Amino acid sequence: MTPESFRAAGHELVDWIADYLETVERHPVASPVQPGEITALLPSRPPTEVEPWSKVMEDLNSVVLPGITHWQHPSFFAYFPANSSYSSILGELASAGLGVNGMLWATSPAATELETVVVGWMAELLGLPECFTGPDAGGVIQGTASEAALCAALAARERITGGEANRTGSPAGLVAYATNQAHSSIEKALRIAGIGAHNIRTVAHDETFAMRPDALAAAVAADRAAGLTPFFVVASVGTTSSMAVDPVAAIGAVARAEGLWLHVDAAMAGVAALCPEHRGLLDGLELADSFCTNPHKWMSVNFDCDLFWVANRADLIGALSILPEYLRTAASDAGAVIDYRDWGIPLGRRFRALKLWFTLRLDGVASIQDMIRHHLAWTAWVADQVRADERFALTAPPHLNLVCLHHVDGDAATDALIAAANATGEALFTRSVLDGRSTIRFCIGARTTELRHVEAGWQLLQRLADGPGATATAGATGSGPA
Amino acid sequence: MTPESFRAAGHELVDWIADYLETVERHPVASPVQPGEITALLPSRPPTEVEPWSKVMEDLNSVVLPGITHWQHPSFFAYFPANSSYSSILGELASAGLGVNGMLWATSPAATELETVVVGWMAELLGLPECFTGPDAGGVIQGTASEAALCAALAARERITGGEANRTGSPAGLVAYATNQAHSSIEKALRIAGIGAHNIRTVAHDETFAMRPDALAAAVAADRAAGLTPFFVVASVGTTSSMAVDPVAAIGAVARAEGLWLHVDAAMAGVAALCPEHRGLLDGLELADSFCTNPHKWMSVNFDCDLFWVANRADLIGALSILPEYLRTAASDAGAVIDYRDWGIPLGRRFRALKLWFTLRLDGVASIQDMIRHHLAWTAWVADQVRADERFALTAPPHLNLVCLHHVDGDAATDALIAAANATGEALFTRSVLDGRSTIRFCIGARTTELRHVEAGWQLLQRLADGPGATATAGATGSGPA
Repeated sequence: MTPESFRAAGHELVDWIADYLETVERHPVASPVQPGEITALLPSRPPTEVEPWSKVMEDLNSVVLPGITHWQHPSFFAYFPANSSYSSILGELASAGLGVNGMLWATSPAATELETVVVGWMAELLGLPECFTGPDAGGVIQGTASEAALCAALAARERITGGEANRTGSPAGLVAYATNQAHSSIEKALRIAGIGAHNIRTVAHDETFAMRPDALAAAVAADRAAGLTPFFVVASVGTTSSMAVDPVAAIGAVARAEGLWLHVDAAMAGVAALCPEHRGLLDGLELADSFCTNPHKWMSVNFDCDLFWVANRADLIGALSILPEYLRTAASDAGAVIDYRDWGIPLGRRFRALKLWFTLRLDGVASIQDMIRHHLAWTAWVADQVRADERFALTAPPHLNLVCLHHVDGDAATDALIAAANATGEALFTRSVLDGRSTIRFCIGARTTELRHVEAGWQLLQRLADGPGATATAGATGSGPA
Repeated sequence: MTPESFRAAGHELVDWIADYLETVERHPVASPVQPGEITALLPSRPPTEVEPWSKVMEDLNSVVLPGITHWQHPSFFAYFPANSSYSSILGELASAGLGVNGMLWATSPAATELETVVVGWMAELLGLPECFTGPDAGGVIQGTASEAALCAALAARERITGGEANRTGSPAGLVAYATNQAHSSIEKALRIAGIGAHNIRTVAHDETFAMRPDALAAAVAADRAAGLTPFFVVASVGTTSSMAVDPVAAIGAVARAEGLWLHVDAAMAGVAALCPEHRGLLDGLELADSFCTNPHKWMSVNFDCDLFWVANRADLIGALSILPEYLRTAASDAGAVIDYRDWGIPLGRRFRALKLWFTLRLDGVASIQDMIRHHLAWTAWVADQVRADERFALTAPPHLNLVCLHHVDGDAATDALIAAANATGEALFTRSVLDGRSTIRFCIGARTTELRHVEAGWQLLQRLADGPGATATAGATGSGPA
């Protein structure tokens, strides 16, 4: 492809994206294709001739789009938001165009220094406590909260073992703590780190699905009595299933007293702290050792962009640093710079700071605050509708941008309703299970969502609540997008 | 940012990228800035007002570009190539524009199915053996070879422990094998996985820096005699420091006999197998359990894009799968689809298949083969020049696109030469150490490189070989890009 054909194709693709995002609500939210349907549209063998751009564009429309579940759709109420913005798309494009690898400061100083600066801006905008902004602390962009959780677990393992785990392996006897509402990435991280799922204690939660600090303290005491070594606790601020908030301050008190590393996972909810009136979400964070939240979820920054802070950067770097000769540089040897490769799992790093920088400058935090406030108001409206409709009940206290509701006729009715609603293509919800009960997660977070979409989503559930789907059970188990 | 302002800004940015890549050689290859210089150009506090696009564009030129080390520069001979292409930049843009998360098949079937198809195309184009293309096998796009190495180590740990490591933690006694030439990500992966650096045996290498299979067999036998459990060996096809190729077939024979998982790391060199005359690089691969190579290094696919195959997908999925209720879908429950979240570390996944698809269609494999063949020819030319210049000597056998050379006056002269050459901004080389000797890595792999750039790079080294830099030693230790 020549520079000239790139210019022409690039302009066309930019316009295609604008067209797509402007008209995204015309698509069914979840792709209606069956397994194998997209594959059948693709050649099984690689192309032998160069193809024209027009053919690729054609396939974007005829092959790719039918197979897309539209995360940017205003009626995407599933999973968590992964909202993007025009400004962050430009940031991603600029990063791709520059094509640098920011593994070391020296491999592009601007990639490292801009990352440090914009992560600092975010710390201020979120009102993070001093422990995450002082000279011993540090912030970095990770790909996902899964990676942040793994880094936190590894830093905790490093601290409790004085570095011995990196030398001789994860020792037996380390124990971690979380509720059964913690994100699956926490268990995955502890499996990866060689701790093992059996060494994660499921700490009891209260009726709001938040961790009970007394149960944590009791579990830690029991493990100590058994000769084990408690080392890591995860507090979730906004759990995936119900947006529950673990009491960070009380958990932090236990963690401090017992020498546990406290990781606070606020992957989705943390961004709400951009609104000063929601800073209370982060109460107790001054007792944490690490914290993450994802601008790629609810801040309109294109996936992937997770912000991860540690109170003591030496723990993280100690866990992850490795220095072969071919990565030594004068600036690093002098200790004058940050090499972010030592702050995460992969060596190579994209220039992700650009999209955060573009978003904060071109859209501004005020527009993000407005968006979040609208989402919260509309969520409260949905919760009120649920309370007023006797066919439905709240499965958990509504919080932030999530309402968990169920059909009063029971799990079969709830499951059938989700399947029926999703099959319409008019909206998309995720099913979860809270203490054994099926629940519909109604999560409001797309940048494109307006009140009318929320109203239509609720009306869809109402319309189908009494339909044949509400009593049918066949095929409902495990339903989600087809 | 409105759709209309996005269109205008997007067109401008596309043109800016084309201008940048067309004129990239006007920049010094390595950024000449000092630590903190970019930071000083940036506001320490976040913007309080929305800024116009023109201001951001201005800063791209005045703040970002001076801090860029230009990986796309034709005289970038450092590290490894991370070459990009216009077509892959468009693929990244399309992915950002669609803004989907391909964690599950259901969360965008096209993202999963296109990935499976293009990874299959790549298996054919690379001539991978049947063990990686059969029904039990599987391929996936990872971000980096670091992540692939970690996934391989975890799958190996899963297999040797029958899943017990995920349940109760990494057991003591597991031992892994590699040479001291293996990439640092191998040791990092084994640290992360709770195996520990002390449980990695450094297997002796021969005079070409390739693993000695007899030394591997002896090390395994010694560990067995000591009651330990050998479980994992990494063969490097194209080591980072000298592009050495471990004898995969002979290592595979040992691995098979001893029940070790064999991971073949061909992060940079593997792409050369796109040229049928270089398929021999992958001899013995039919004995491997996993394999990775990076289109983002030498195939002009924008970073990040690592291809990772396993012979038995059940090992990988067993190691990494975790299924909370909120991620269950009907299609997955029916076993009809791939959910790639179970094939890697993070849950969330970008739609990376698009850039590979775009590159293979818009540029075609023939143009990539041409590029690779040119790089190889020019590398051979450099090696001939080194042989003919008595001031220089080859530090290792030149191979593929890498020549390792040193100054015959010794390490101080070599180190000073690298520092002097890099300081000119005319080219960029990486220093490494081979068996205690400083070496200049001259690695040819940018898409934009022409013979004249290679000649100029060599002439630069010649010009400086007798200069004051060649005898000065101050500040040379650990030199690389300043």
